Amino acid sequence: MKKNKNNINTVYGQNNVKSLLYSNIKHQIITIFVLEENKHLLDNEISQKLLDYDVQYCDKHTFLNKFPKKHTQGIAVNFIFNYSELCLDNLDSNVCFVLLDEINDPQNLGQIIRTCECAGINGIILPRHKSVHITDSVLQVSQGSSFNIKIHIVSNLNSIISDLKKNDFWITGIENSIDSKNWYEIDYKNKVGIVFGSEGNGIRRLIKDSCDFLGTIPMQGKTNSLNVSAAVSAVIIERLRQLLK
Amino acid sequence: MKKNKNNINTVYGQNNVKSLLYSNIKHQIITIFVLEENKHLLDNEISQKLLDYDVQYCDKHTFLNKFPKKHTQGIAVNFIFNYSELCLDNLDSNVCFVLLDEINDPQNLGQIIRTCECAGINGIILPRHKSVHITDSVLQVSQGSSFNIKIHIVSNLNSIISDLKKNDFWITGIENSIDSKNWYEIDYKNKVGIVFGSEGNGIRRLIKDSCDFLGTIPMQGKTNSLNVSAAVSAVIIERLRQLLK
Repeated sequence: MKKNKNNINTVYGQNNVKSLLYSNIKHQIITIFVLEENKHLLDNEISQKLLDYDVQYCDKHTFLNKFPKKHTQGIAVNFIFNYSELCLDNLDSNVCFVLLDEINDPQNLGQIIRTCECAGINGIILPRHKSVHITDSVLQVSQGSSFNIKIHIVSNLNSIISDLKKNDFWITGIENSIDSKNWYEIDYKNKVGIVFGSEGNGIRRLIKDSCDFLGTIPMQGKTNSLNVSAAVSAVIIERLRQLLK
Repeated sequence: MKKNKNNINTVYGQNNVKSLLYSNIKHQIITIFVLEENKHLLDNEISQKLLDYDVQYCDKHTFLNKFPKKHTQGIAVNFIFNYSELCLDNLDSNVCFVLLDEINDPQNLGQIIRTCECAGINGIILPRHKSVHITDSVLQVSQGSSFNIKIHIVSNLNSIISDLKKNDFWITGIENSIDSKNWYEIDYKNKVGIVFGSEGNGIRRLIKDSCDFLGTIPMQGKTNSLNVSAAVSAVIIERLRQLLK
């Protein structure tokens, strides 16, 4: 996976930038670039926040050179994304973490983050190795929602599952297998973790073995499997159904 | 939207090509290109089918020149995609069409096709104008599932909705509005059509007015809306739940 130097990310566009500047999770803003001639077009809430920062106003030539071929709407921010510490104390009664086992496609991760934020998921847990983390593409696809949900990176997914279980979480793995329960037969109320695997390989054996339940969405056509972001949507919106009904 | 000349599409990769060659819906194969030196690596079922066609075996230089930077696995097919006629006679008792109102992103359409095929949807209905249709990107994202589900193009979405209603279909529009029913409170059994709008604009007013029901997935976070392909997944997998339970 491509690492960017010093872990500096860039977001473009007014919605993304607004989400970053108003995020409850503090990320380290490095530089805010504004296209001078368009600054009167900035959203009021953004303009308000800009007063707190040193802003680099650029002429068109400089700005377009820095951010070629991007839909910037005249604003871009360099910053360092702040992953959250996973804290299992003082949780609400209905808590849900989504655990992603070695997902590699930034498009999928971006979509999953957006869907999880929309569905009221409490955090997304990613393994440190062999997994995509936050990249500029992920940020762009997630449409600002990466700033409104906690993203946790852990060294070992299995030991986190064991911590979650010690804290009264029930863990469900979603896999593509006729031996599993139907996804809607699983109870997602109270404290739950839901594990999704990579598209190629599914959930790794050891992690699957440590799940309390295995759920599946039975395929009705000829295609072998849902895309992982579609599977996440189906399952966490089913959780939302169980909570709302 | 970019039109390719003569509506010729290209699919790459063994899975995609196999789905095309074994599709129940006949598409017009124009040329099959095989990388000569890799032909022994082809899937048996593909090799079997190749006997029915004139195949152009290419040396590496020619092949890579024709299909640069593509994950071809040594096979590519030029063909004309065959959209299906919408026929409302002799339908099963549980039938569902997904209607997409002016979706423009090929990534979204590809994902939606894949999810619909997995969920047993009977067909996807697209308007002729202001909508993405089948493109090479859509085919690539849909991972071969475009060949296993009927795709219909219609001149006027509203008149199709009226035809569907005359044929005992109930039409639900999914929108982002607190005035709508929760998505799971709608009955998706028997004959149904489910309408999704574009991300920017939602479902157009006239089409919304002709829906029997409006459903929504209430947002739990700060993000305004689910991506349309995530919304499709959530709703049509809820339909599957209602049919299976």
